[in-house]
Amino acid sequence: MTEAPEPKSSRFVTLRNLLEQGSMRHGQRMINSMHPAEIARLIESLPPAKREIIWEFVEPELEGDVLVELNEEVRSELISGMDAEELIAATEDLEVDDLADLIGDLPETLIERVLQSMDAQDRERLSSILAFEADSAGGLMNLDAVTVRPDVTIEVVLRYLRMRGELPDRTDRLFVVNRHDKYLGGIDITTLLTEDPESTVAELMDSAVEGISPQTPAPEVAKLFENHDLVSAAVVSPEGRLLGRITIDDVVDVIREEAERSVMSMAGLDEEDDMFAGVVTSARRRAIWISANLATAFLAANVVGMFEATIEKVVALAVLMPIVASMGGIAGSQTLILIIRGLVLGQIEQSNARWLLWREIAVGLLNGLVVAGVVGTAAGLWFRAWALGVIVFAALMINLLAAAIAGVGVPLVLKRLGIDPALAGGVTLTTITDVIGFASLLGLGTLFLL
Amino acid sequence: MTEAPEPKSSRFVTLRNLLEQGSMRHGQRMINSMHPAEIARLIESLPPAKREIIWEFVEPELEGDVLVELNEEVRSELISGMDAEELIAATEDLEVDDLADLIGDLPETLIERVLQSMDAQDRERLSSILAFEADSAGGLMNLDAVTVRPDVTIEVVLRYLRMRGELPDRTDRLFVVNRHDKYLGGIDITTLLTEDPESTVAELMDSAVEGISPQTPAPEVAKLFENHDLVSAAVVSPEGRLLGRITIDDVVDVIREEAERSVMSMAGLDEEDDMFAGVVTSARRRAIWISANLATAFLAANVVGMFEATIEKVVALAVLMPIVASMGGIAGSQTLILIIRGLVLGQIEQSNARWLLWREIAVGLLNGLVVAGVVGTAAGLWFRAWALGVIVFAALMINLLAAAIAGVGVPLVLKRLGIDPALAGGVTLTTITDVIGFASLLGLGTLFLL
Repeated sequence: MTEAPEPKSSRFVTLRNLLEQGSMRHGQRMINSMHPAEIARLIESLPPAKREIIWEFVEPELEGDVLVELNEEVRSELISGMDAEELIAATEDLEVDDLADLIGDLPETLIERVLQSMDAQDRERLSSILAFEADSAGGLMNLDAVTVRPDVTIEVVLRYLRMRGELPDRTDRLFVVNRHDKYLGGIDITTLLTEDPESTVAELMDSAVEGISPQTPAPEVAKLFENHDLVSAAVVSPEGRLLGRITIDDVVDVIREEAERSVMSMAGLDEEDDMFAGVVTSARRRAIWISANLATAFLAANVVGMFEATIEKVVALAVLMPIVASMGGIAGSQTLILIIRGLVLGQIEQSNARWLLWREIAVGLLNGLVVAGVVGTAAGLWFRAWALGVIVFAALMINLLAAAIAGVGVPLVLKRLGIDPALAGGVTLTTITDVIGFASLLGLGTLFLL
Repeated sequence: MTEAPEPKSSRFVTLRNLLEQGSMRHGQRMINSMHPAEIARLIESLPPAKREIIWEFVEPELEGDVLVELNEEVRSELISGMDAEELIAATEDLEVDDLADLIGDLPETLIERVLQSMDAQDRERLSSILAFEADSAGGLMNLDAVTVRPDVTIEVVLRYLRMRGELPDRTDRLFVVNRHDKYLGGIDITTLLTEDPESTVAELMDSAVEGISPQTPAPEVAKLFENHDLVSAAVVSPEGRLLGRITIDDVVDVIREEAERSVMSMAGLDEEDDMFAGVVTSARRRAIWISANLATAFLAANVVGMFEATIEKVVALAVLMPIVASMGGIAGSQTLILIIRGLVLGQIEQSNARWLLWREIAVGLLNGLVVAGVVGTAAGLWFRAWALGVIVFAALMINLLAAAIAGVGVPLVLKRLGIDPALAGGVTLTTITDVIGFASLLGLGTLFLL
């Protein structure tokens, strides 16, 4: 009991081995002792053919929760293999917010049946969640908030709770509303346990805690939770009515997904895609990104093409040009990532962007002196041509300057255009540093070496 | 009250404007109404010269918490500007785990004084946390766990809590220990409120909840919290003694920092560095990464240099070689990022890596056919030389194949060597695709075009 749980990956290995050896019984026990999120990660980590085997093992009452945790692609794959009865059984016990996430992936005809199997109140709740974007506060909320009136005493609340029985998971506070469901504040459960039972809710409630508007984007919700160390928070309509509550577990998922999305989008990938997708699906998916990059590669090659005559006479330029271009890309990417992170954290706008631009230019020139010095000297020695060395030096200085400016400017401009800098920043930047790197080296070479 | 709070970034803008206009009074009020984490983000977002102004405004009782939230670099900068009295006042009210994070940054002489100002129990607690790595369960834990004995009734627990008064923040469960502090399980606070007060703790406690070993790495702790939707968890020594508890707010910070670290390390940056660091500091910091990349750029240039004679005769090769090299880098990066993410999620090891390798090779060849087809045709038309087109086609196929193999192999090998794939994966991969891209195009050109 006191030992750290076995690290997940090694448990996955054990399970995969059991499956290989055909030890089905033992494997099944192990799987059903896992948390739905872990089962989902395990299923995602298997090639498609083996997923069905695991899925058969999962107990029906866990199936719904596992489906919710799976990435979209694997989820629809499994759903398409389930019959209507199974699916209805799986969705039956889900929390309404989880059902809201899942329902869009169900077959049309089934949605109808699932809705009919719900009672009127749950149906209304479901539709109230579906009215909001999945990645907004409204889409994240649950409808299981426990509410109390401001004028009752703590003692009455305690009696009510004991009568009510089991509280929803992660209930750290009750929400205080008036007769018209208007949100007034929250009262911590620990307050109920420690304060004078004769006090009224109104006396002890925390009315400074603001309700979150249902339209608030999920990342904004995550920041609120992080900054205020919340476990749950109220979602409140523009008219002040309590709509539901958001709990930290869903916020943690938002933070994790947001982080994954930004890394994956740097390579034009989608974090909801199946890592074990088939060859054709994967190839088609990556083709767009590769095409975009191919176009920019042609652009850069075109610049080189303009200087064919120069290269023919001074071949050394062809040898050195990848260095000039790639060093610009490397230095520029450092600036780019720094700025993108600052934008995500809300730490950069107009007023301090200028400060950063100047700092980056200075850093670029300072490191440029070193890099250009080394490469220039090396080039001079290598090709025994000092004029060439000076030209390489100058081209590198120009490109590192361009890299600094592009590293600050590209993400700011993309953001203003409404394009995700994490997605398009890298391609745009390296296109700029490639073009300027090639043009400056070959251009200076044409001017001074021919 | 019911409106969404003003987005953080726009509040930052307002504040920065107030400072520019010299509206100090209003700015000060705004700052002290913010959460310490927000104040920390604001301070980080200001150029160094302006930080002191804000810092002067922060109320003394908030200073400690703000220091904890700041990144290491800005923190030491501010600490170095504070006198001993201020620092002791700031650290006085900190939770012990926060103090443990901070204490290493204090001047030697002051550490002595801070320790002396603590009572014996707190001093012992502090040293018990400092015994563990900061990024382990032991380093994350707090010592404010509220414990109960298994043989008492709920009614007694309720009386005890009311006598005890205020509970620590994010107390969602009490921990059950015997007379020797041996950890037996947990009991939810909501259980206390809803179950029969005559029952004993032993009857209602959840003994299936495992304690976390203090050596567990922070990312492993984060996965446990995510998979089991925890709000708090017990840290338990190898002998079974309850050491402390970890709360979700610290786990959220771990998840956020881990995500930032992986993005930043892709560009050789450190997430604890000050975004507004001075020119010389920034330049020196980035020099290592740039030097590493410079070395690999020379390696690639050296390959080109081996084919000078070929380029002199067929200049078109110099024009096309950046395309061959960069397309390999792009396709390889997609594979690389996919594999790195799989490794982080614990979804990839030996058995399925082979499956992924074959899939990536197939995807590479399939997309290769399209890319190589387009580029080969374009090259043939551009330079009116069909032999050149065929050679470009072949070189691209070779490089995209190499990219697929390197994209899968590089992160696996780096991981086995104990090197962070996020840090070194990109450089290694593009070095491989550059070298193979240049060598295959120029090599084939030498064989067939001269």
